Amino acid sequence: MSVAILCIGTELTRGEIVNTNASWLAESLVALGLEVTAIETIADDREIIARTLGRLGAAHDAIVCTGGLGPTTDDITSECVAAVLGVPLERDETSLAEIRERMSRFGRTMAASNEKQADFPRGARVLPNRKGTAPGFSAKIARALSFFMPGVPREMKTMFQEHVAPALSPLVRDALAQVRVKTFGLPESSVNDRLAGIEQQYDVTLGYRAHFPEIEVKVLARRDAPPDARDAARRAADDVIARLGPDVVYAEGDVTFAEALGALLVERDLTLGVAESCTGGLVGNILTERGGASAFFLGGVVSYANSVKTAALGVAPELLARHGAVSAEVARAMADGARRALGVDIALSITGIAGPSGGSADKPVGLVHFAVATERALDDRQMVFPGSREQVRRLAAFAGLSLVRATVRGL
Amino acid sequence: MSVAILCIGTELTRGEIVNTNASWLAESLVALGLEVTAIETIADDREIIARTLGRLGAAHDAIVCTGGLGPTTDDITSECVAAVLGVPLERDETSLAEIRERMSRFGRTMAASNEKQADFPRGARVLPNRKGTAPGFSAKIARALSFFMPGVPREMKTMFQEHVAPALSPLVRDALAQVRVKTFGLPESSVNDRLAGIEQQYDVTLGYRAHFPEIEVKVLARRDAPPDARDAARRAADDVIARLGPDVVYAEGDVTFAEALGALLVERDLTLGVAESCTGGLVGNILTERGGASAFFLGGVVSYANSVKTAALGVAPELLARHGAVSAEVARAMADGARRALGVDIALSITGIAGPSGGSADKPVGLVHFAVATERALDDRQMVFPGSREQVRRLAAFAGLSLVRATVRGL
Repeated sequence: MSVAILCIGTELTRGEIVNTNASWLAESLVALGLEVTAIETIADDREIIARTLGRLGAAHDAIVCTGGLGPTTDDITSECVAAVLGVPLERDETSLAEIRERMSRFGRTMAASNEKQADFPRGARVLPNRKGTAPGFSAKIARALSFFMPGVPREMKTMFQEHVAPALSPLVRDALAQVRVKTFGLPESSVNDRLAGIEQQYDVTLGYRAHFPEIEVKVLARRDAPPDARDAARRAADDVIARLGPDVVYAEGDVTFAEALGALLVERDLTLGVAESCTGGLVGNILTERGGASAFFLGGVVSYANSVKTAALGVAPELLARHGAVSAEVARAMADGARRALGVDIALSITGIAGPSGGSADKPVGLVHFAVATERALDDRQMVFPGSREQVRRLAAFAGLSLVRATVRGL
Repeated sequence: MSVAILCIGTELTRGEIVNTNASWLAESLVALGLEVTAIETIADDREIIARTLGRLGAAHDAIVCTGGLGPTTDDITSECVAAVLGVPLERDETSLAEIRERMSRFGRTMAASNEKQADFPRGARVLPNRKGTAPGFSAKIARALSFFMPGVPREMKTMFQEHVAPALSPLVRDALAQVRVKTFGLPESSVNDRLAGIEQQYDVTLGYRAHFPEIEVKVLARRDAPPDARDAARRAADDVIARLGPDVVYAEGDVTFAEALGALLVERDLTLGVAESCTGGLVGNILTERGGASAFFLGGVVSYANSVKTAALGVAPELLARHGAVSAEVARAMADGARRALGVDIALSITGIAGPSGGSADKPVGLVHFAVATERALDDRQMVFPGSREQVRRLAAFAGLSLVRATVRGL
């Protein structure tokens, strides 16, 4: 079963909006066990739509299409499908009544332009739209079972789940299983090198998804029966984890780095605080992106200016004058000060030069000093990160949290 | 000139990442005056890549392609192009040396898998990559001038601007001019309503680009001569700005909200500090995303736990007990405490319920209290934001900074 996704809309080919429908549909189709081999985005143009539908219909088993079902003159998907099939458009009175009823419910009167939303190619099956006025439809184009849905994401998603997925899933024969292994700390090329041969050894597919600076390794197994697929994915994933090691692999599945670290801290009954300089609040932001952070994260000080390092963290002005704000000495004083000021068990400090300016021969852009303070120890580390200001900041934030993770694991 | 965009990567056809490259490229090509008629996304599959390149090359004047130039075994774009052209891959020693030099600069040793990034189809022109290890290349495929770039967005964007745009723009005959108007505070439908008629009146195209929660309005004029295009875009943009007003429009061009606010603060010689609870560091992060923030932003306190609100900001425990952490009273005490603790002229505080849990009938998810403290005044405000935890946090951060902007403009 090869499936194509077709997105119709000049707002997409002009780049005015990001096509989130395509990735949502692709992910949903893959989760059903289908293989998406092409995603095409085309303008609202009769000739291009007709030509593309013909080509995709001849090459794929199914087409899932969004867009061009609205009331305006540039919404022409239905008439293009009718033209490709060589059939007329016919008004569906049931759909017309439903559109009229829906509009009156929201206090709107039906414009003439809305009536065409009840026109479908003869022989098409209408797909009701519970979230909006534009019904969808399905039809066979060449060999492809084809589904046409509106482009509005929430209307499309509901229609897909209620009508398209149930029609497609009986066609899938293979069983699929997937394990997602989340990593931080190795570049993608090194991850790839360490995992060489796994695909052949276990007859699985490895996918890499970089969400900078993290890398997720997806292990996908396809077998005849679900238990076999699950077993194969599990065995391959265990080898992936063994080869990358526990310093690099921090979780499986839909768990963020912050959540994995948080679970570790909660397990040990430890609280965390941060003192950020060059990251400016990014570490706190990462820690609180998902709910539940209050179980381990008490807070932080963003000491962007030296005056705040002194006033809020107690860093001695002489230390700042002697070593500079970006130094091991100041990082240590920041972490120690944050642990006391915030009343936490573990405090992380980060002070560095994120760029693009501010670097020197001695202290280049990308240089970052870290310290981790606990009741018993105060350790510092320095690293130099490549890339833009944004990358240096993200790398510094993750590297800092990684130092906290190593500290807690070593306690 | 018809241009096709081709994005190669199984992570895209599987929906593992949203294809932001496609919309960025489409927007950039349209800004050059080119028409994008097709955007295709395909898997890392030799046969599909070759077939698609052949078809696009025959139908378009140019192909702009991203992805598949990395070091891993599923990066096969270069060898597919070589196969389509019927030429061998040849190693480019200059590129190899540059990759080696780049990696050693960042303390990494070159893996064998990185070497193939210096292999290009014979006759191709190499496009240097200033931001990463994978160089791109250009070649003629059938009638299409074709450009191959890495899929990593920042590498791709720099390469496009430095090498692809200069090669394509001489082929465009019309003169184009564009003005970007940056806004925050009105929903897209309201922006759209207020700007009705501008396109006809000035013979320009308006494009909307939402970078949540900001909306950028792009005014694009196409004329025979550059001065005419610039003049038309300018006059239309002035009307756009007049219709939306100075509370909504904060800048033109490539200026972030934080930079616009920072310029205003620097102009008035004022320093800013923040006290964040539900935003967890996001406001500090937004303020320091670009360089130059140290001219106005001294720092912040992330008082996620009540104990930190008391210890670092001096919020009285009785106040927290009586009104709860999410209250006007606590927001006021946080802003006032932050102004003193951080030694700043203006302090913003944010305390709210970002969700997904933690809401009640009295204090629903999305409720956020703000306060802005200056030497002379202490004002508070409450808002309720819709959406996910991420959306509530971003809206709260921007709304808070918007209150600071209004305060400074009113001084």
